[in-house]
Formats: sequence, C-alpha cells, structure tokens
Amino acid sequence: MMGSWDLSISKELSLVEDLVQRSIDSREPLLTEIAGYVIGAGGKRVRPAVTILSYYVVGGKDVDRAVQIAAALELVHSATLLHDDINDGGVMRRGRPAAFKKYGLQNALVTGDFLFTKAFAIGAKFDPEIVDITAEACVRLAEGEIRQQANARDLSMSEKEYLVIIQQKTAGFFAAGARVGAMLGGGSREQIAALSEYGRHLGIAFQIVDDILDVVGDESVTGKPVGSDIREGTVTLLLQHALNNGNATARTELEGIIRRGPKSEEEVLRAIDIIAASGAVDESRARAGEYAVRAKESLDLLGPEPQKLELMRIADLVLHRDA
Amino acid sequence: MMGSWDLSISKELSLVEDLVQRSIDSREPLLTEIAGYVIGAGGKRVRPAVTILSYYVVGGKDVDRAVQIAAALELVHSATLLHDDINDGGVMRRGRPAAFKKYGLQNALVTGDFLFTKAFAIGAKFDPEIVDITAEACVRLAEGEIRQQANARDLSMSEKEYLVIIQQKTAGFFAAGARVGAMLGGGSREQIAALSEYGRHLGIAFQIVDDILDVVGDESVTGKPVGSDIREGTVTLLLQHALNNGNATARTELEGIIRRGPKSEEEVLRAIDIIAASGAVDESRARAGEYAVRAKESLDLLGPEPQKLELMRIADLVLHRDA
Repeated sequence: MMGSWDLSISKELSLVEDLVQRSIDSREPLLTEIAGYVIGAGGKRVRPAVTILSYYVVGGKDVDRAVQIAAALELVHSATLLHDDINDGGVMRRGRPAAFKKYGLQNALVTGDFLFTKAFAIGAKFDPEIVDITAEACVRLAEGEIRQQANARDLSMSEKEYLVIIQQKTAGFFAAGARVGAMLGGGSREQIAALSEYGRHLGIAFQIVDDILDVVGDESVTGKPVGSDIREGTVTLLLQHALNNGNATARTELEGIIRRGPKSEEEVLRAIDIIAASGAVDESRARAGEYAVRAKESLDLLGPEPQKLELMRIADLVLHRDA
Repeated sequence: MMGSWDLSISKELSLVEDLVQRSIDSREPLLTEIAGYVIGAGGKRVRPAVTILSYYVVGGKDVDRAVQIAAALELVHSATLLHDDINDGGVMRRGRPAAFKKYGLQNALVTGDFLFTKAFAIGAKFDPEIVDITAEACVRLAEGEIRQQANARDLSMSEKEYLVIIQQKTAGFFAAGARVGAMLGGGSREQIAALSEYGRHLGIAFQIVDDILDVVGDESVTGKPVGSDIREGTVTLLLQHALNNGNATARTELEGIIRRGPKSEEEVLRAIDIIAASGAVDESRARAGEYAVRAKESLDLLGPEPQKLELMRIADLVLHRDA
C-alpha cells in the first residue's frame, strides 16, 4: 500500500479507495465479494498515487475529477489482474489464492468484465480526449499481452522488442495515468508531456523490478512464488542477460528449459539459479535504475512543488520495492 | 444474418458492420484476426437491427448515432461470446472451433477485453444517460452470468428465478439496445418505455428459443452441438418442465445426470432424450410464443410506421429461428 509509503496524498488515496469500493457494489453479493477480494488484496496503489500527484503538481485545485479517473484506472488494473491470473495459471497473488482458484474460472472472468464495465462507466463521464487516452492505454495493454504471448519461448527476441512489449502492457498505463492527471489539473502542454514521460519511464522501471522479483523475490513478502515467467516462457531482460552472459553449459541448459517449457518445479528452480548466477539481477537492477533516473529527469521542467519531490520519491520506492 | 431476413435497414446494418470492422483494427494483427474471427462468424445481428429499427420507428432522422451505439453493443456482445465460450468450454461456435480452442485461452480472453474497450470507446461519446443504460446492461449481464453459475445443478430453482437470470443475461441487453435506439431517435417517454419492453420480451423469447435449440437444434444449422446446458448444469425452462412432468423413472434418471454432471456423451444424449420426451420443447415453445406476443403488443402505442411491422416480424423470426 502506498499508505505505508507516507505520501502527502493519503486522504486522496482514501477517496479513490472509497470510490472503487462503491463501484463494485452489486445486486449479486458474489460479484462484489470477488471484486473486493482482488481489490482488497491491496497492492501498492502506485498508479492512483501517480495520477493524483500529477494532478496536483501542475496546480490542480479540485481533486475530485482526478480521484474519479484514478479509481477508473485502478478498476481496469484490477480487472487485468483477475484475467492475467487466469492466463498465467498463477495460483497465488499477494499471499492468497488467486481469485480464479478460489472462485472458479467463470466467476473470475465475469468479475473482470464487471470491473471493466464499472471503470468505463466512470471514465465515460470525461471529455473525449481523456476517454481516448484511457481507452488507448487499455488497447495497448491488450496488444502487449497478445505480443508477449506470441513471443513466449522466443529466445531470439531482442531487448528492443522486450521494451516495446513492457511499454504496451505496463508503462503505457502508468503514462496514461500521469498524463490524464496532468491534463485534469490544467497543466501546460509541456507539463503534460513531461509527466507522461515520467509515467512511461516509471512504468518500465516498475516492470523490470517485477521481472527481478520473479527471480529473486521473497515469497513471504511478494505473496507469490517465484518463477512464473519461467513457467510461462516470458522473455525478460534477466533471461536475455543470462542467455547472453552465462557460461556455455548453463546457457544450453537454460535454453532447453525455456524452449520446451520446464518439466518440473526442480527445472523452474534450476532455471532461476542459472539466471541468478549470470549476474542478470544486478544488471537488470541497473537498467531499472536508469529508467527511474529518466523518470525523475522528466520532471526537470516542473516547478519546486512538494508533489514533485513525492513523484521522485515514488521512482525510488518503485526501484527498491521488495513486493 | 439479419441480411437474409430481408429487412429494410440492410444499408444501416452494413454501416454497423463497417464500424465494427474498423474498430477491431489493431497494431497487433493477431488481435484483429481473433476479433474478426468471432465477429465475422456472423450471427444474426438481431441486436443491431432492433436498435436501428427502434431509432427509426420513433422518427429518428440521422441514423449515424444509432449506428454507433449499435456497433458498440455488438462489440460488447462479441466480447461476451468470446468469454462465454471459455466459461462453457464450448468447443464449437457457429460451425467453427470456438476462438479459445483455435487461438488459446489467453489470446481469446485478451481479445474479449480488447473488444470491451473498443465498445466503450465508442459508447463514451454519448450522453451520460446513454452511457449509464449501456453500462448497466453490461453489469446486469455479468450479474446474470454469476447467478446462473451459482444456480447450476440446482434442481429446486424456480421458474421465476430462471426468468430473472435470463432477463439479466440476455433480455436486459435487448431492452437496452431498443431503449437507446428510441432515445437517440427522439422518442417520447412512452415510446421509449414501450420499445424497452419490446426488447425485454423479445430477449426472453430469444433465450427460451436458445435453450430449445440446445435440446433439439440441428447441429448442421446451429453450428454447435446440442447439450451444452446439460453439460454445464444450466437450469432451463425445458429442464424444469421435464423434472416436473416426465414419468417418475425418467425424472429420477435425469435428476441424477444433472445433479452429479453427465459422465459421458451418452448421458448427455440420454438427458436430452428424457427432456424431449417430456413435452418440454412444445411447452417451452409456447412460452417463448407468449413472450413474442407480448413483445409485439408492447408496440401497440406506436404509430403505423413501416419499422413497427419489421419489429413485429423480428419477434416472429426470433421465435421460429432454427439457428
């Protein structure tokens, strides 16, 4: 929870939380329960924080609109978590069984659709320009998922292609949240572009750290077992590094495991060991660090508002998060 | 295809088709391919026809807005088809493998989300009242799916409960399409309410006929095998009739198959035979006929516009459709 990150906007984040909770109210208690299960699991609420801070940092005064769009984006994010877990076969999420394991595939899938609908019901109240940006971010997200899936187990995938995919599936959403916050706050064109770039770089750093945690994360902190990228054949910076820099025997073994898919949990752990031993974690952390720096540099043209410091601090927190 | 039903609005339905096709354009060709696969499979386009005719029948003059909302609703409908097939494990749809069988669960799921997004991107351009009605119809749909799932294999489910569920998951969507068409066309409050009721009754008839086709449909015409309701334990009017009116031995056998789920295709066919032998098909067809009549009666207060006759004809076509 961002709450534990001690930001100045805890009141606004509570308003986002309240609106999200009100939005999932339904005549079917089970729908509300499943939606609440996913949303209540917390998460870092980093996306809403970025939107709210982007709003304030350009001088926004009446935060209600930013709260609404932040809630809409968080609802979309929750919908994609629900659907992603189904896709990945991920059985744990934030220390608890994934919703589709607890409630069944059909109920989880329908609840995702419900959350999408609720998000758009909020989003549709905004100007066409805002609608287009948020819809476009959702479309990119779908495109990123499709592309990642198409490139699964593709050991020849380039780093450039990796960056394209994570911008589609993760960073574009952060960028949209920052952009929309700045637009609603009445930012100048330059400010809006700067915050959008902040969001994009932050999102890239966020995803690289996610990929790192899938290799060396502490399950008791992340709430999910390591190795899902190995199981799914998702090509990450870490895997690319290990395939390019490990010793020859280890590389051949790793290639084999990824190409045909791991046959056992032992193979998953073996792949993780090979990746970790290749220096991929430090290398990827350095790359994430570069993007965090770029995120902060994107804020250069903004004034000395206190929210700017908080946005910079979020970049550090995203980089050093362990969950 | 409604085209084969020879309606006066074939030009408008082509415009809906064009907009739907343009909407699914994507940077990821696979996303467009899967979306096109589902949408291109045709279907009867009865929902768009109802929206367009409801628009014209109250005197609407500039059909472009009705075309847009009809396309948005058709995109939502296609998204739910994609997701429903995953839920039901339905392997065939309109004579071809279901998208999730052909393209994989993950790709089908993400394409459904993409279609939702595209639908809402169109829908968001409308007045809040229109947005609320369409979003509400989508929410009801999710609620109906959850409720149907919760009541699967519940042999004590009442007919009233069945009607609640099919209004949520099917008829509400028809009602929303008719209502929105009439609103955009500038209909009076009474006209809008009348067309909404028309849509609701038509949708109930449509769903009952769907349930009938799942028992006695000709696979070479419907494009999907019979018995999916038996496999899923979905309680329909036909099942309820058979459980209340069949001979005692057959009823006990049917109860057993539904309660524990069919163990084989032979059991599915046996359940179908028992249902068919109980007179459930004629009984359900009579019930669907009553709703088709009510749909037509809902149009009483409308003037003698030619579109009124077409709406009435659609009620007959829905009732007598064999696919």
